[in-house]
Amino acid sequence: MQRKSFDAMTCPIARGLDRVGEWWSILILRDAFAGITRFDDFQASLGIAPTMLTRRLKTLVANGLLERRRYSDHPPRDEYVLTARGEDFRPVLIAMLAWGNKHFAPEGETILIVDSHTRRPAEPILVDRVTGRALAAPDYTIAAGPAATEATRRRLARGSRLLSGPAPKETTP
Amino acid sequence: MQRKSFDAMTCPIARGLDRVGEWWSILILRDAFAGITRFDDFQASLGIAPTMLTRRLKTLVANGLLERRRYSDHPPRDEYVLTARGEDFRPVLIAMLAWGNKHFAPEGETILIVDSHTRRPAEPILVDRVTGRALAAPDYTIAAGPAATEATRRRLARGSRLLSGPAPKETTP
Repeated sequence: MQRKSFDAMTCPIARGLDRVGEWWSILILRDAFAGITRFDDFQASLGIAPTMLTRRLKTLVANGLLERRRYSDHPPRDEYVLTARGEDFRPVLIAMLAWGNKHFAPEGETILIVDSHTRRPAEPILVDRVTGRALAAPDYTIAAGPAATEATRRRLARGSRLLSGPAPKETTP
Repeated sequence: MQRKSFDAMTCPIARGLDRVGEWWSILILRDAFAGITRFDDFQASLGIAPTMLTRRLKTLVANGLLERRRYSDHPPRDEYVLTARGEDFRPVLIAMLAWGNKHFAPEGETILIVDSHTRRPAEPILVDRVTGRALAAPDYTIAAGPAATEATRRRLARGSRLLSGPAPKETTP
């Protein structure tokens, strides 16, 4: 399958996706957060072909999400450690975990985020760090940023439901 | 490229990824949140081959993220609308947007989430809906759920950094 780069797209979601590449890369990041650093351990965890794993790790290093570090000279061996940019991917994984738990765990959850004191499962929601309020309409809105293209502005003018509630907007012109 | 299903994997992140398939699907969901519902509009937005778009839409419908609805009988035309499960993918996209804005917008952001009243850009963080506290160690922890396998329990016992701060854990046995 030919892989098309979305670098030309200005959307931050498209750009972010372009840097993680695809789901193998996201699972590698998941494993990195689980404490895995070495090639053999990634391979054992993922059941991925070595050539594919090599390619994915290279891309993640090239895009600044993982850093390659030598941990043995004889024989030469490297490990892969999350960079600050890789660490910042954490909320995406946590949001994905919560979504997976809610929708694809019919027999119950396998892993949970719990309150350390009460052991009650957390209910992850996104808020603004400054106000503490949920990132939802009408308190928050999607706006054109300083580098928005004309196409982006036109698109935003038609409205976005990214921060809206579940009620669909019926605005067929 | 042979696509391997992670259905056998019990990890909620892997399961979630398996349902969205790959990044085309995530961009289709992004466009659905932007208000796009029709095949031609998805195609114009994404520049995706029609056969690929058809396949991706079918998968998203089969996995319950989009619902297909007839909007015209003559000629027969369908549109694709987010289901409740699809709507619940919203936090993943918002987290991805924030990450993309932070790391891949060197010339400034193209789209922003702003406070509707002050127009100040929001700083998205994940908190527990009940306590309002950030989902971070040591207040929160990753724990085995009721359906955890032995392998998951062993893995969690080795520690996870998914909720930890940026300091790497140096615990090579």
